[in-house]
Amino acid sequence: MKSDLDRLMKTRNLDAILVTGPAQHNPAMVYLTGGRHMTSADLIKPCGGDPLLYYNPMERDEAAATGLRTKNLAEYGFEDLLKQAEGDTVKALALRYQKMLTEQSITSGRMAIYGKIDVGAGYAVFSALRELMPDLEIVGETARDSMLLEAMATKDESEIEHMRQMGKITTTVVGNVADFLTSHQAKNGFLVDRTGEALKIGDVKRRINLWLAMEGAENPEGVIFAIGRDAGVPHSSGNADDLLRLGHTIIFDIFPCEAGGGYHYDFTRTWCLGFAPEQAQALYEDVFEVYHQIMAELEVGALFKDYQKRACELFEARGHPTIKEDATLQEGYVHSLGHGLGLHVHERPWSGSTATQDDVLHPGAVVTIEPGLYYPDKGMGCRLEDTVWVNLDGKIEVLADFPMDLVLPVGHGNH
Amino acid sequence: MKSDLDRLMKTRNLDAILVTGPAQHNPAMVYLTGGRHMTSADLIKPCGGDPLLYYNPMERDEAAATGLRTKNLAEYGFEDLLKQAEGDTVKALALRYQKMLTEQSITSGRMAIYGKIDVGAGYAVFSALRELMPDLEIVGETARDSMLLEAMATKDESEIEHMRQMGKITTTVVGNVADFLTSHQAKNGFLVDRTGEALKIGDVKRRINLWLAMEGAENPEGVIFAIGRDAGVPHSSGNADDLLRLGHTIIFDIFPCEAGGGYHYDFTRTWCLGFAPEQAQALYEDVFEVYHQIMAELEVGALFKDYQKRACELFEARGHPTIKEDATLQEGYVHSLGHGLGLHVHERPWSGSTATQDDVLHPGAVVTIEPGLYYPDKGMGCRLEDTVWVNLDGKIEVLADFPMDLVLPVGHGNH
Repeated sequence: MKSDLDRLMKTRNLDAILVTGPAQHNPAMVYLTGGRHMTSADLIKPCGGDPLLYYNPMERDEAAATGLRTKNLAEYGFEDLLKQAEGDTVKALALRYQKMLTEQSITSGRMAIYGKIDVGAGYAVFSALRELMPDLEIVGETARDSMLLEAMATKDESEIEHMRQMGKITTTVVGNVADFLTSHQAKNGFLVDRTGEALKIGDVKRRINLWLAMEGAENPEGVIFAIGRDAGVPHSSGNADDLLRLGHTIIFDIFPCEAGGGYHYDFTRTWCLGFAPEQAQALYEDVFEVYHQIMAELEVGALFKDYQKRACELFEARGHPTIKEDATLQEGYVHSLGHGLGLHVHERPWSGSTATQDDVLHPGAVVTIEPGLYYPDKGMGCRLEDTVWVNLDGKIEVLADFPMDLVLPVGHGNH
Repeated sequence: MKSDLDRLMKTRNLDAILVTGPAQHNPAMVYLTGGRHMTSADLIKPCGGDPLLYYNPMERDEAAATGLRTKNLAEYGFEDLLKQAEGDTVKALALRYQKMLTEQSITSGRMAIYGKIDVGAGYAVFSALRELMPDLEIVGETARDSMLLEAMATKDESEIEHMRQMGKITTTVVGNVADFLTSHQAKNGFLVDRTGEALKIGDVKRRINLWLAMEGAENPEGVIFAIGRDAGVPHSSGNADDLLRLGHTIIFDIFPCEAGGGYHYDFTRTWCLGFAPEQAQALYEDVFEVYHQIMAELEVGALFKDYQKRACELFEARGHPTIKEDATLQEGYVHSLGHGLGLHVHERPWSGSTATQDDVLHPGAVVTIEPGLYYPDKGMGCRLEDTVWVNLDGKIEVLADFPMDLVLPVGHGNH
């Protein structure tokens, strides 16, 4: 949680953190500012001290609205810095950081850097800063071991309110989609509208975006609405021109966020329109059973990756190949059980190959539980996913309820 | 243009480029892949050779849909790399890059890196790669001197089709907003709906998002719809709870993109509801005149920043302070004349303090022209902005037409 930041910084011997980039769609900056309309900014927080937000003058109101201490970047006179750097932009930017850090008495020790920006610019500027400030170690962490992601991995009540609200929005939209589909009729094995026109996946996706916008949410990474063989490939997003054929599995995976790049929700259902063939029904039941078995076994304080192992065992016992045996597997259970969720659609704790001994289901953790089975050559796949919170009492809570039924009934017109 | 990539790489002595990150909302990766639902990927392009896209196995269909040569990242066996790196994730990722590059015979020379990812992870991994491959210089560029941004700075006909379409969508939505506002009535100096309820900026913004979604566009960076004093601060996005007071300037700046983070459009109008007080009218006329003067003077092949100088002259001649005299200015003409636009909402060519001698209005350049005046203490501001293309014949074309009128008439109910 955010309240753990100083403790975590101390544990990792970090004397400061520096966050850079926009204050929208940039989880590190959104986490520390609350998210505002700022196209680029810097934030420096010493261990045990308050953050200082550096803003561009046109964005002074947005900066002020964060409630943080702020400073105008224009005070550093970029033109002069550029002269001092003999026209070298990278060096001018490094000189500016040096000034900012020196003013805050951060001239030695260890400083971790965060923020989604262009990797080339970041690499160059921080390499130059390292040369200017050799006593200051610049620490870069991956998604596997990031201090900030460790803080983000547990959520407090106010963050959970955001995620609950996104869960409500998500399930409302999923409900709209179900209603929309079942309001159609079947004709020659496909879903058609009142005029007999075949419905396409693109039509469904357009409505999903519209309904999300109506609820004030954003869908920056799109939605997976994939049928048949595409449902057999976990991250196939679905072909806009595909028709909705009855009796074929549809994977509907939706992971919207609050406007401006705030908290996400992540949710998947698998549907068959009209009826489910025996093979699809059997596939669904295997996933359904594993989902419920895992949910029943989840315990606060456990290693998340142990449940990945458990999911593999359960799927193997039902005769499916799993990723445990072969990392390049493309049939059977081919991905990890779930992942943390928050300002990133994928964050800590991890359950898959990137998981470590620190990926624990601590109180406050929010994770997806999303077992799935994929058989692209048989033209089918199934995934069931809910977002769960290990609440502050250590109980496991699904953040938004929605039925798991496989079959969505549709009327028969002139079938 | 994309067809210039090899020429530009040669000019800058780049033997290869490496692009990393998602294939959505990541301009470098979208540019080279066309944009697909990939949560993370790598792409390496040698100078004079075709790019090779490295994908995660679950995203193989999305990777294949790019039409590029592809390779499955799972083939590198991350678990083994991690063992080899003694559990150090950063080193394991650097080892993987080393393998990928060595297979492509890129082991020396200069390689530029691009892509929007976490700066800490990028800094750490590429610093480790530099140690593993000391003969390969890793080049990081800023937005001021980026080779890729130089390629992107001129657009071909197919890119312009995307931007024209976004211009159409943008002006359609702006028209919807104008119609929506003028369909309201005035009461006690504020806009009210049929029931007499005062309209709020938040109500307008919600509709903007909805209308954008209906047109298939996204609005990841929000919209500026700011009234009165907020209109006097260029990047104030506007307060959701503010009412729509007649006779106060409203700055409406909208910069949506294609779904998934594709091409943008950027557009601003300034409106007064009902009537314009003399001061607002005068402010508007100054901006209007400067806009048209600059538009008349724009010439292919000219330095973009020369028009910034010119805009300052024109505003000074009309008695306004300008940023030319003082970089920290907050009243008068306080920003640059415009910027390039494409997959980024701000890209090359630049006209402001980051502009160089290379920021030229070449055929193919797409830039915004957006003079503005800001007087927060007088509670007003005005900006007029269009997106223009220097077409391949060197003519200046506005990509989407829309009236510039200041006053939006509103009916009077029980005024």
